[in-house]
Amino acid sequence: MARTGEEQRNHDLVMAMFDAVLKPLDAARVDDFISPDYVQHSQLAPPGREALKDFLRNAKRDTPDAVHDIKRSFADGDHVIVHYHVRRTPEDPGFAVIDIFRIADGMIAEHWDVLQPVESGGPNPNSMF
Amino acid sequence: MARTGEEQRNHDLVMAMFDAVLKPLDAARVDDFISPDYVQHSQLAPPGREALKDFLRNAKRDTPDAVHDIKRSFADGDHVIVHYHVRRTPEDPGFAVIDIFRIADGMIAEHWDVLQPVESGGPNPNSMF
Repeated sequence: MARTGEEQRNHDLVMAMFDAVLKPLDAARVDDFISPDYVQHSQLAPPGREALKDFLRNAKRDTPDAVHDIKRSFADGDHVIVHYHVRRTPEDPGFAVIDIFRIADGMIAEHWDVLQPVESGGPNPNSMF
Repeated sequence: MARTGEEQRNHDLVMAMFDAVLKPLDAARVDDFISPDYVQHSQLAPPGREALKDFLRNAKRDTPDAVHDIKRSFADGDHVIVHYHVRRTPEDPGFAVIDIFRIADGMIAEHWDVLQPVESGGPNPNSMF
């Protein structure tokens, strides 16, 4: 790794957001990490920061035992990328997810994601992770 | 951007692989970019470099007009990340894809991907890209 100080700070911000917001599904901590001008590209939630809070409250209600298991993460300039396995229940095969975040002024300003169900029985016995 | 020379070379290698292999679906150029010890995590193809060639030959036969539209790309250490839109035909809404590549000794040595169909009518009118 040869990250600049800014890249490492951006990476640390996103890891802290996972620990404070996404893993515990805690809408109350969103404003500490997410910009008021947040641009949402995920198809899971309507645009904006307030809709993200609603998404988290609904997830906390519906899947309080969800687990987000980070497999690898990267930083390049003002972007941070995280590859993880999310399971909604202990029995759930779950989803492989890659998130891309853009950081501006020390806050998460934009977010893209791609999600794919984890399935077995395909042509590749290797793990998706 | 503040990439090291190695990060920029890794990024350039992956962009060259997209141009020579993935966009034209050209199995004949695989050995110029992909390590003999290639570790495949994609669920689209069986393990290994030869299986990747079979995958490309099948794709060339079945979807010769497929388009791979790169939206953004990143490099961090020995990893390169690419976010793109693949459409198999001009009418195909296609898939959002994020690929992660690990580079070793100037070749692509390992690959993960996550794919999600592009759909409309969800809660977020913003583009997935």
